[in-house]
Amino acid sequence: MAEPVASSAPFKGTEDGIAALHAALATLPGPDPEAIAAATHRDAFLTKPPGALGRLEELAIWYAGWRGTARPRLAAPQVVIFAGNHGVAARGVSAFPPEVTAQMVANFAAGGAAINQLSETFGAAMTVHPIDLDRPTMDFTAQPAMSGAELAAALAIGWNAVDPKADLLIAGEMGIGNTTSASAIAAALYGGDAAGWTGRGTGVGGAALEAKTRIVEEALACHAGALGDPAEVLRRLGGRELAAMAGAILRARHLRIPVILDGFICSAAAAVLERARQGALDHAVAGHVSREAAHGMLLDKLGKAPLLSLDLRLGEGSGAALAIGVLRGALACHSGMASFEEAGVSAG
Amino acid sequence: MAEPVASSAPFKGTEDGIAALHAALATLPGPDPEAIAAATHRDAFLTKPPGALGRLEELAIWYAGWRGTARPRLAAPQVVIFAGNHGVAARGVSAFPPEVTAQMVANFAAGGAAINQLSETFGAAMTVHPIDLDRPTMDFTAQPAMSGAELAAALAIGWNAVDPKADLLIAGEMGIGNTTSASAIAAALYGGDAAGWTGRGTGVGGAALEAKTRIVEEALACHAGALGDPAEVLRRLGGRELAAMAGAILRARHLRIPVILDGFICSAAAAVLERARQGALDHAVAGHVSREAAHGMLLDKLGKAPLLSLDLRLGEGSGAALAIGVLRGALACHSGMASFEEAGVSAG
Repeated sequence: MAEPVASSAPFKGTEDGIAALHAALATLPGPDPEAIAAATHRDAFLTKPPGALGRLEELAIWYAGWRGTARPRLAAPQVVIFAGNHGVAARGVSAFPPEVTAQMVANFAAGGAAINQLSETFGAAMTVHPIDLDRPTMDFTAQPAMSGAELAAALAIGWNAVDPKADLLIAGEMGIGNTTSASAIAAALYGGDAAGWTGRGTGVGGAALEAKTRIVEEALACHAGALGDPAEVLRRLGGRELAAMAGAILRARHLRIPVILDGFICSAAAAVLERARQGALDHAVAGHVSREAAHGMLLDKLGKAPLLSLDLRLGEGSGAALAIGVLRGALACHSGMASFEEAGVSAG
Repeated sequence: MAEPVASSAPFKGTEDGIAALHAALATLPGPDPEAIAAATHRDAFLTKPPGALGRLEELAIWYAGWRGTARPRLAAPQVVIFAGNHGVAARGVSAFPPEVTAQMVANFAAGGAAINQLSETFGAAMTVHPIDLDRPTMDFTAQPAMSGAELAAALAIGWNAVDPKADLLIAGEMGIGNTTSASAIAAALYGGDAAGWTGRGTGVGGAALEAKTRIVEEALACHAGALGDPAEVLRRLGGRELAAMAGAILRARHLRIPVILDGFICSAAAAVLERARQGALDHAVAGHVSREAAHGMLLDKLGKAPLLSLDLRLGEGSGAALAIGVLRGALACHSGMASFEEAGVSAG
């Protein structure tokens, strides 16, 4: 395998987050074709009718390829949660006030949130990274959310948050107002009406949802003509926690650590990478599709079928953490089952 | 709570499995309304937007009701696997020979099957119950699969297999030819064409699938006029492992142990109970929908939305065991999360 790129290297102390992000995307390692072939071969002789474990089989082979071994186990999943505040939140796009971002960070630290319970249940180590919560991003309906240096700093936080010894990464988020950012990013990356990409978030509806849609439209109009580069989309319409998620998912790729994507906000951050370089998310699967309708649209654009569809719309990495169970089950079957020959079973 | 019905009582030594099954269905305990109310109240104050955990919330409240406590944990899930052989298998309805039933039982005992790995992964105790494998049921295209006494004996095996200390039950199966039995049962219980209820099973297609469909049609024609009683449907078109699954799921109801249903065959066995007494499966959720198209049709008839949809078609309880992870996650969130007040988070 190639040596992993050193920690923080691409984003350290740079003023130009855009150039640094493109540089870090320029050389991406792929999966191990020998491990894929060996895992595919193994799968064919396990004591089950061919294909009877459905998506568990493709999931195990995918994971085997990225880990470079035909018979992998999941030993060290990692959940990293990034929190940021958004200038646009002052315009009332959320059902909750911006103070809730910091309050929920305290709840994560105290172990009281959904993601704490899910990380513990599925054996994942969890870290929380609040990013400049007292310094919201700029209101992107009037100016870019971040400077190039701020983008680079947030990318670096995500990059450095990944444990090189992890064998699975989940990036989650907390940030009042951040579905608005995700909607604007998705619309900028893929086109289409703001209304189609804008949903209820934590619970807005009616007139508040219409207002949120208009704010996304304003954002797109404000930055029209400057959104051709996906990295620029992230700087102008993103937030610190979204940039950090992108940085973490990119670092995981350099370390060949498979990723389970969470909901709409995580997927929007990840989509920046895929739009900047096709195949940049080959090391990632979609953990779930949320009730936020735009999430399903975005996963379609990414070509990723979700593992779960349980009407979650919480964020925090919660849907992805729940999908660890599916991956654990897939790997347990793939790596633990007997072959027809070992078990003395007629192969039909 | 009512005292649980004593082990094997309804089916012990009787020749008349039909009457015994109806008697055991006559008095079914319901969930605890106070626990449901208390769990619903708790859910409303957890640190998340209302409804943001989607189906996890309804799952936790459902489980709380059956366990009679507002803040339940999953401590002792049980997987019971029943195996049986089918006279109809001699007609070539499966891609595998009948010997595979016994071979797979040995594989279960040795720990080499998918369900072994999944039970271990999700912390479930697993037991295997081969039932008279050297004595297949009669070919139900020519006569009833079982006598009344054979039906009773198989129901009793299922009934007795349930550990009264379990807090979750999964009933799985192994039996070459048993998707044919499940298709015939589903068609008899709900009507409709044999072709609609008949699928690939372990892997038949083309001419073999057409032949399988004709065999289901033959079975329905052979027993026409005698299929008005769902218990009689089970005796005439079922198999020992299907009857045992029905007995186990019914015993779980008497013990207020929640059930996760597995695939098409498990669901067909369970549907006998629901058709014999509406609401008999209120203590059960659908763990997954399999790639066998008839399974989705059957779950629609039962009014149960599956937790997972991952193209599995293995049986053995595998899809249901995978869904233990979803239930574990739901209960961990429900019982472990902080309330807004506890966490000092603004409730919006």
